[in-house]
Amino acid sequence: MSENKEIEIMQSVYDKNDEVAANINTELTGKGIYAINVMGAPGAGKTSTLIQIIKRLSDKATPYVIEGDIEADFDTKTLLALGVKTVQINTGGACHLDSPMIGKAVNDLNIEKGVLFIENIGNLVCPAEFQIGEHAKMLISTVTEGSDKPYKYPLAFEKADAIILNKCDLIPYLDFDEEFFMKGVRALNKTAPVFKVSCKVEEGFEEVILWIMEKIKGQTK
Amino acid sequence: MSENKEIEIMQSVYDKNDEVAANINTELTGKGIYAINVMGAPGAGKTSTLIQIIKRLSDKATPYVIEGDIEADFDTKTLLALGVKTVQINTGGACHLDSPMIGKAVNDLNIEKGVLFIENIGNLVCPAEFQIGEHAKMLISTVTEGSDKPYKYPLAFEKADAIILNKCDLIPYLDFDEEFFMKGVRALNKTAPVFKVSCKVEEGFEEVILWIMEKIKGQTK
Repeated sequence: MSENKEIEIMQSVYDKNDEVAANINTELTGKGIYAINVMGAPGAGKTSTLIQIIKRLSDKATPYVIEGDIEADFDTKTLLALGVKTVQINTGGACHLDSPMIGKAVNDLNIEKGVLFIENIGNLVCPAEFQIGEHAKMLISTVTEGSDKPYKYPLAFEKADAIILNKCDLIPYLDFDEEFFMKGVRALNKTAPVFKVSCKVEEGFEEVILWIMEKIKGQTK
Repeated sequence: MSENKEIEIMQSVYDKNDEVAANINTELTGKGIYAINVMGAPGAGKTSTLIQIIKRLSDKATPYVIEGDIEADFDTKTLLALGVKTVQINTGGACHLDSPMIGKAVNDLNIEKGVLFIENIGNLVCPAEFQIGEHAKMLISTVTEGSDKPYKYPLAFEKADAIILNKCDLIPYLDFDEEFFMKGVRALNKTAPVFKVSCKVEEGFEEVILWIMEKIKGQTK
């Protein structure tokens, strides 16, 4: 097959995905749901971050989670045990969530007014290319991954509406260069707030909650 | 486009890739080159691991590196500064290396007898699906990513010929469950050795070198 044919086919996949995503976004907005696409590398602490956020958010807004994994459902079990309405998507190999998967999961969840967190597959590349009906993208990066990540994986950092820098409790044991990291982030993204947190010692989440609450207020205006 | 049509197209992409990969593999074998496809999540320490290996390998076999990144060339500059013959591939968005990219890079490198390390894009999903002419796959996992990774990203662990567990110096500050990790690895892969290392404190690489040297010996028999 020619390279042009491949590019044409990929474009049609993107177009179909974006069309479904726009419909989901309209449906969620109509229901008063603010949807956040949570992206990050494997082991960045996406679920741990959601747990910290949900703990502090629950008395202000109802949280829902769509949990994306290639296989397994550990995180869904953890969230359900915490009383969070959660539905699992297993992609069985696919490296990112797409909007048809989310359309189905939204129906399964049967949700009303609140905040929907969609935890994407652990991957710093492909998820950033696919709209899935979200109102905002939240990128979880970590100090253990190193300070060069914005330079090497620019799209995820460019598209993020908020960046969480996790595992900051480990900074004393690492050679993380925060200035270099922030320079890389700001070259791609002038506006996204960067929140330094640690899920392990449960620090830094107050400002994340303020950011989410402001977004919800903006939506209901 | 129908789903069947998409599957058919993907199959033709895989087939074409595998055909080129087989040719590259034959060419490299003929030249006495043992090629290792180095895979791992973003920030797993793939380049740092290569540096530690190459330091200890250089008096035994000539190392070459093909360095895969979406963007940027920090790692190539580092390796060139160490005197390692290295060529950069920037995929400009693609989430894995494929065999046509490697075919071109092998020509550019103009290599003879030795060990060729091909550092793939930081991604625990897609690289495992694509043969790129390698003789072995080396997976770099880390204790900071957490012990559930084999369960969530099975293909990479299943296909690995050797697994490096990096950043072990950080174990005292983490909740890493080694028994659970190893149980997950062994459910997928009975034979790959698992080497516990730390690039930061430069420990654990002697056995990795023995493994590589044994592989080279096996090839030249």
